[in-house]
Amino acid sequence: MGAHDSKNNPTQCKTSETPSKNTARLLVRCMDRKGLVAALTQRLYELGANILDADQHSDTTTGLFFQRIRFDLEGVGIGRSDLESRIRELTDRFAMEMKLSYAQDRKRVAIFVSRYDHCLYDLLLRHRAGELDCEIPLILSNHPDLRFVADHFGIAFHVFPITSQNKDSQEARELELLAEHHIDLVVLARYMQVLSKSFIAQYPERIINIHHSFLPAFLGSRPYHQAHERGVKIVGATAHYATPELDQGPIIVQDVLHTSHRDSVQDLVRKGRDIERAVLAQAVRCHLEDRILVCCNRTIVFD
Amino acid sequence: MGAHDSKNNPTQCKTSETPSKNTARLLVRCMDRKGLVAALTQRLYELGANILDADQHSDTTTGLFFQRIRFDLEGVGIGRSDLESRIRELTDRFAMEMKLSYAQDRKRVAIFVSRYDHCLYDLLLRHRAGELDCEIPLILSNHPDLRFVADHFGIAFHVFPITSQNKDSQEARELELLAEHHIDLVVLARYMQVLSKSFIAQYPERIINIHHSFLPAFLGSRPYHQAHERGVKIVGATAHYATPELDQGPIIVQDVLHTSHRDSVQDLVRKGRDIERAVLAQAVRCHLEDRILVCCNRTIVFD
Amino acid sequence: MGAHDSKNNPTQCKTSETPSKNTARLLVRCMDRKGLVAALTQRLYELGANILDADQHSDTTTGLFFQRIRFDLEGVGIGRSDLESRIRELTDRFAMEMKLSYAQDRKRVAIFVSRYDHCLYDLLLRHRAGELDCEIPLILSNHPDLRFVADHFGIAFHVFPITSQNKDSQEARELELLAEHHIDLVVLARYMQVLSKSFIAQYPERIINIHHSFLPAFLGSRPYHQAHERGVKIVGATAHYATPELDQGPIIVQDVLHTSHRDSVQDLVRKGRDIERAVLAQAVRCHLEDRILVCCNRTIVFD
Amino acid sequence: MGAHDSKNNPTQCKTSETPSKNTARLLVRCMDRKGLVAALTQRLYELGANILDADQHSDTTTGLFFQRIRFDLEGVGIGRSDLESRIRELTDRFAMEMKLSYAQDRKRVAIFVSRYDHCLYDLLLRHRAGELDCEIPLILSNHPDLRFVADHFGIAFHVFPITSQNKDSQEARELELLAEHHIDLVVLARYMQVLSKSFIAQYPERIINIHHSFLPAFLGSRPYHQAHERGVKIVGATAHYATPELDQGPIIVQDVLHTSHRDSVQDLVRKGRDIERAVLAQAVRCHLEDRILVCCNRTIVFD
Repeated sequence: MGAHDSKNNPTQCKTSETPSKNTARLLVRCMDRKGLVAALTQRLYELGANILDADQHSDTTTGLFFQRIRFDLEGVGIGRSDLESRIRELTDRFAMEMKLSYAQDRKRVAIFVSRYDHCLYDLLLRHRAGELDCEIPLILSNHPDLRFVADHFGIAFHVFPITSQNKDSQEARELELLAEHHIDLVVLARYMQVLSKSFIAQYPERIINIHHSFLPAFLGSRPYHQAHERGVKIVGATAHYATPELDQGPIIVQDVLHTSHRDSVQDLVRKGRDIERAVLAQAVRCHLEDRILVCCNRTIVFD
Repeated sequence: MGAHDSKNNPTQCKTSETPSKNTARLLVRCMDRKGLVAALTQRLYELGANILDADQHSDTTTGLFFQRIRFDLEGVGIGRSDLESRIRELTDRFAMEMKLSYAQDRKRVAIFVSRYDHCLYDLLLRHRAGELDCEIPLILSNHPDLRFVADHFGIAFHVFPITSQNKDSQEARELELLAEHHIDLVVLARYMQVLSKSFIAQYPERIINIHHSFLPAFLGSRPYHQAHERGVKIVGATAHYATPELDQGPIIVQDVLHTSHRDSVQDLVRKGRDIERAVLAQAVRCHLEDRILVCCNRTIVFD
Repeated sequence: MGAHDSKNNPTQCKTSETPSKNTARLLVRCMDRKGLVAALTQRLYELGANILDADQHSDTTTGLFFQRIRFDLEGVGIGRSDLESRIRELTDRFAMEMKLSYAQDRKRVAIFVSRYDHCLYDLLLRHRAGELDCEIPLILSNHPDLRFVADHFGIAFHVFPITSQNKDSQEARELELLAEHHIDLVVLARYMQVLSKSFIAQYPERIINIHHSFLPAFLGSRPYHQAHERGVKIVGATAHYATPELDQGPIIVQDVLHTSHRDSVQDLVRKGRDIERAVLAQAVRCHLEDRILVCCNRTIVFD
Repeated sequence: MGAHDSKNNPTQCKTSETPSKNTARLLVRCMDRKGLVAALTQRLYELGANILDADQHSDTTTGLFFQRIRFDLEGVGIGRSDLESRIRELTDRFAMEMKLSYAQDRKRVAIFVSRYDHCLYDLLLRHRAGELDCEIPLILSNHPDLRFVADHFGIAFHVFPITSQNKDSQEARELELLAEHHIDLVVLARYMQVLSKSFIAQYPERIINIHHSFLPAFLGSRPYHQAHERGVKIVGATAHYATPELDQGPIIVQDVLHTSHRDSVQDLVRKGRDIERAVLAQAVRCHLEDRILVCCNRTIVFD
């Protein structure tokens, strides 16, 4: 066999933010006022941090200020707890809400599926290719069908069949499993069960769902059937954080594709798969890289 | 001055169907059965017609068959009324609904506007560039503001201010004017008045409206405000035939554009203009070229 | 566990042309003249065939006429050879080139890969979901790396390492294997070897390659590097039939995505994967459904 | 007439950066190092400036750092020259190249046209709607044809017919006119003459051209003809800064649209108009808002 063409090795591909590098991400939110950016960046400079990216948004309606700063930890001479308290001194002074996270602390993700495999494969393939910087220790399902997919990727697969009778107890067992595995993010990859409000309350802004319509059009079930019935010329998909109000959570990513009179409902289902998986993967990537802030049921996505 | 670069003259640009050529378009609809295409094309062959385009659709849900045939009239040795009756013999035999139209009979269009000018300019510029094969003898408005645009293009401009008191009488006068000018198609180019049901009933499937959202999301007024409020990541526009049920008519063309948290309502309004004018122009072009059939409040668009 | 929600079973999803149904597809090409459509459709009617779809194109530059007719075989009372000879009588009379194929004769596809897995997975997943109506009996590679993917889908995997010394003999062995398995179509799914001209000559218009640029920009190797160097704001992918002239074959499908100054070469590689797999799958689907005619190094794609 | 629906007045629409507001934009470029952002934002804070937007980019290949900061001048108690020198103290210390501009100093734009009107109308309509925050005191052309458009918008129109004999002297007169009117930006809105190298050298990174292909495909003349000949499935448009090397300047914006075998060259020309005008307008807007930095023949566009 010829020389290894290592330059073509897809496992060397990186996301735009090199995964697991020694960097931190600071998200802040507060009322807008002068000097916020100067104060934050000055503090980071004092701490020896090199700013790699900085993005900000001022919402004119609410008067709120949002910022995401990604910085290099190489030159930071102090430990995490010191770093955090030094930053918190500053953010407290400005009454900022803050969140500090570290690229090296890869988030731990649990994927929920039912019997559709397209979003699941897509997430697992992107994960293996290095596009999603996280751990995926478990896959949960209400059906046993997709175990072979989990096996192919070497991921534990747990089946929790759901009936109206056992829903509470099964969700309790699921939550236990999530806690045990220190799960940071739940991804509903076409999971065909509605989670209870109490389940959702455990993971605020940490459950991402994919809805197969361009919300708020076609709420509820069978959106492709609704779309076909109405005769629309586009169908879409929406990734959003799950909230107790079904299909009402903050929208993270949406995309659409064009259709025509030639498309049957089944065609819409088929074509929709491509857009569903793309939209979900994009939302998950943004969450993993701490690019999303939520305010007033809307998202600020620094991408 | 150098030689005229006539090859670059935009007025020589043609739509894909050379405007006003000596061609006819036959639209038919009936229950699907064997031999329909053979019978139709055989009849046209007997009449000396060369088929330039043929498109068909069988709707599996309703069992209906739809066809559009565009043919050259050059070799047809008989007059219009003979041609029509020879075709009707055939379509009657198959219980087909049929409609025959001639490219040389350019449709006559009236444009309704209020105070937004972007769709109006767009239609008039495309018309002048030869993209819309029609006559535009009149522009009607409930405001005098856009008269100067009509003047620039040399088109008659009529103002009909509307109040709740005078709406009936003003609409009656508008309908008179349309009748007098033998108008075939009414285009509501961001006309900010709801037409009465009786007005709409006069022009079934002959009034095209542009709605500034991707229907059925954000029905009714101020859709950009609704979109901003909901935090969607796409906004869109929908061209549809007007029906008595507001925003419920058969959808002809839709398109969207991506937005982000950075977009204020006013940004959505600004960005939306581009998509509104593109969608409306596309719908009008399809109508003018007899590419649209309506069935069950959905459109079949042979494009 | 609750009732099986069989309506959601993705394996029931169909392409718009129900796979493997008892239908035939007739492709014809000839000089344009009156009566072609009538003659063809009349002949099919006489044979008892119900036309399901018909699409045609007249090229005004060359004067050539192209048609694709898909018809139901249910009512056709004669066998394949009789059917073909009855149609050929007609097509010979008009000096038409014709090709008749049957949906039930699923095409046999061999996929060539190297070490990138994204196009391979995509094709195999779409195949399993019923989107690609074909058999895939073999996968060939110049590297052993992707055997585990073939295994996961239960498809035979053959490794043919290529060096400049052994290229001729290895290609000979590959061709033997293809012949033995009655392969109809070769798909180069990011196969990182240039096939010899004599290999390509064996499968005219039956080898589909994916090139990772919007040809004719960035011919040759490392197109993402070239694109980054030039500072373009879009990158793309092109699926085309392989011809002896590298990257010069008839283009079947192209698509692009937007990029910015923030994208490194590696980002382009990563983002490009999505568009590469989508474009390749679309081209393969069109080929499998006999939707493509080639003329003057350009494709007519009836989609 | 009923109440004025002032909320619908399109002239009240604003770009995302309110035009002509009392803000300044600071563009800087230097070798990347720690503390740059802190130093800049600290200095602005000391000067009383509230940062409204800040965007940055570090190019990993060249090690260069780029930043755009938009800030409010309301709280800045000193005059422009003091402000600039206080900032320059800082940027000199870090060996930064800097450029400071003021939203209230609306840039002065000259549009060059020949006989195509679509880009011209588009720019003038967007300007009137408030989308392009600039003055447009003059339109220059090598043909008299479009004078009526200039008249409609009340803009001076100057004709400079060009022959190979008079090119030098005519360009000299054009340059005089531009100087006299203090023109900041020249927009070639489908101007069908190649400007001389010496002309271009007078306006480095201040001449924007629209090329009707997705460069670097189809360099030179008649790109739609080239595209049709090659049988591509997409055509595009590229807005770039003019440089002495034809079609080789830094690309600012690109976009494409899909085509098919049905499109003649004339169809490509017609369809291309939509994309040309959109791409050109976007590039002009980015330039007017000081969003573009150029480095190594590539653009950084902070949008």
